[in-house]
Formats: sequence, structure tokens, C-alpha cells
Amino acid sequence: MNLSAAELAAQTPSTDGRVLRGAKTRTAIVEALFELFKQGIYTPTTKQIAEQAQTSVRSIFQHFEDMETLYADLLAVQTVRITPLMESLSADGTLEQRLTELQAQRGQLYELVSPARHALATRPNISKLITQGLSDLSAELRGQLLSQFAAELSVASTQSAADSVEWLDLLWSFESWDRLRNIQHLSVEEAGRSLCAATLRVLP
Amino acid sequence: MNLSAAELAAQTPSTDGRVLRGAKTRTAIVEALFELFKQGIYTPTTKQIAEQAQTSVRSIFQHFEDMETLYADLLAVQTVRITPLMESLSADGTLEQRLTELQAQRGQLYELVSPARHALATRPNISKLITQGLSDLSAELRGQLLSQFAAELSVASTQSAADSVEWLDLLWSFESWDRLRNIQHLSVEEAGRSLCAATLRVLP
Repeated sequence: MNLSAAELAAQTPSTDGRVLRGAKTRTAIVEALFELFKQGIYTPTTKQIAEQAQTSVRSIFQHFEDMETLYADLLAVQTVRITPLMESLSADGTLEQRLTELQAQRGQLYELVSPARHALATRPNISKLITQGLSDLSAELRGQLLSQFAAELSVASTQSAADSVEWLDLLWSFESWDRLRNIQHLSVEEAGRSLCAATLRVLP
Repeated sequence: MNLSAAELAAQTPSTDGRVLRGAKTRTAIVEALFELFKQGIYTPTTKQIAEQAQTSVRSIFQHFEDMETLYADLLAVQTVRITPLMESLSADGTLEQRLTELQAQRGQLYELVSPARHALATRPNISKLITQGLSDLSAELRGQLLSQFAAELSVASTQSAADSVEWLDLLWSFESWDRLRNIQHLSVEEAGRSLCAATLRVLP
């Protein structure tokens, strides 16, 4: 897990005020971009970002080589934020307990990443680094489901388990969550409850 | 259902060669855009479109006021193409027959619209007309599921039927199809079979 330059800088004690102010500005710019995404402004201008961060356009260009670097920084910060959430998922307990754990984690995770995911979707030419990051996350989330329901999957036939894995991966994906929330207009609680109930149907 | 200007023009017999040539060029431009989307080029330049259509950039601007108009025309043509597919869906027969009908229709439909859907996703500021069109289609597809599984849904309790409708709407959505095909890497046949088997699990 790589910390972003901004988070690293913010965490490093420094007696150099200039460096500290620089790191603060850099963080403020990334946070401004997060905030604009939350407002549904997915392709903000540098002027909009500067205003939101209460800094200057010039300062943005001093801190970030280009927009791609800024987006990469935002994703690095987001990765740092979702890591405790990913790591805290417990695969112990009864099926009901494991399902409750999963519902809580995925709900928080997807609500957190939703603005940046929507913003990224509008950028067709994202870097290989970002594409790889999303693909790694996707694989990790699928792996979690295999652990979370290992007890149920291991006793099923190969074909039955394979079917269930695809259904679980689909149901607990960001794409499903996003559709339930924003197209089918379910609340966080309704979406979570719906996915839990569906899981009980699609397990082997 | 509105025919696009290009399709209307193409269907109207005309002795005026100039009008006919104009309509042909307009159609060629729309088809070129379709082709570029299929190649994964979601935000082509007018130069790329002109080359693909074997016409000039000037001709594109003669036929289309702006890119928004061109995109609207493409969606109108696509709507004309998917209409027979939407209308041919039979809600008669055994559950297995209705499921087979649905699988065939949705598979064809989603494979057909996939390039344009991916291209549209990269445009954050699509027109209200397009947004409304997508929303209407979404409602129509949900309505189809209610008809297709009316027999099973009608005998269930209100809560049970409501849960099943959300699951069916999610499973048979473009978003699910797209994820199964492009992230979970299932073939058309595998995705269809997987959704049919999942449907049997989530019906009341």
C-alpha cells in the first residue's frame, strides 16, 4: 500500500514551515477535488478546484504536474482510507454474522468510493496505473467473498460453487450497489438488506 | 418512437439525387460513429469520424449542428434497431420458455447497445433528452420483467414479490450484463445461463 505524497508529507513531522504549508495545500487541493466529485462535478476546471480549495490556479500547477497526477493522488488517498475497512472484515461466525459484516463493510466502502468512481467513469483514457488499481481491488473484493462464504462454497459441487461465486461477485459489486442506490433508488439500508436476502438465495 | 432524421430520409423515396446523397452521407457518419464506439474509441475527433465515414470534416459540420446532435441521431437509430427486439418478447408459456425468451432478448439487446452505452458513460454532460431516453428504457425493461414473471410474482406475498422485483431488475440490467461480460469475463452464453439460473433462485 503506497501512501500518497500528500499523506506522507502530512504524516512526516517537520520543522520546516514551508514544507508543511506545501503539504497542507496539496492535501486541500485533493480534498477539494473529492468535494467537487461529491457534488456531481466530475470534470471540474482548475479554477473550480482552486476556489473549492481556497487557493490559486497557479498553486495547483505548482503541486501537480497535470490532472492525471492529481487524480492519482486522490486515488492514493482513497486507497489509504478504504484499507482499514477492507482489513476489518471478519470471516468468522455464523452465516448471519458473516453476512452482517459484509453488508456493513461493502455499504461503507461503496458509499465512500462512489463519487470518485462516477468521476473516473467519465474519463475514458485513465492511466494504466489506475486501471490496474481498480482491477486489483476488484480481485481482492472477489477473494473476500470466497473467504466470507468458504463454509457454504466448500461443501457444494464444483459447478454449483462456481455458479454461486459469479452471483456473489455480481451482487456484491460496486456496479450492483450503484444501480440499487441510484437507478432502483433503494436506501443504504434497503440495498444492504436486499443483497443479504439475495445472498441467502444464491449460496449453494 | 421517433425515427431519426437520417432513417426517415433513407426511408423516404425521393427522385432528388442531392437529398438522397445527403441522407446517405448522414447515415454514413452515424454508422462511422457506431463503428468507432465498437473499437473502443468513445470520444473520437471529427477527423476520426470523417475518415471512418469516408467523408470530410466539413461534411460532418454540414449535416450535424454539433456533436450532441450527432449523438442524439445515433441514439435514435439505435432505438429504431432495438424496438423489434423489445416488442418480440413473448410473456407466454412455461417459466422455462419465458426465461429462454428473456435470455435471448436481453443478450441481443445488451450486446447491441453496449458500445454506445460505454461511450455515453464517458460524457458527463449528456442532454436531458438522452438522460430521459435512458430512464424510459430502464422503466420499460423493468416493466417487461413484471410481465414476464407475473405468474410467479402474483402468488407471492407483497414483501416477497417486492424483493424479487428488485433482484430481477438488478440481475437483468445492462449494468449486470456488462459486469458479467467485461469484468467477470463470462461469454454471452455463460452470462445468459448464469442469469437464468439466478432467476430461478430469486423468484418468490
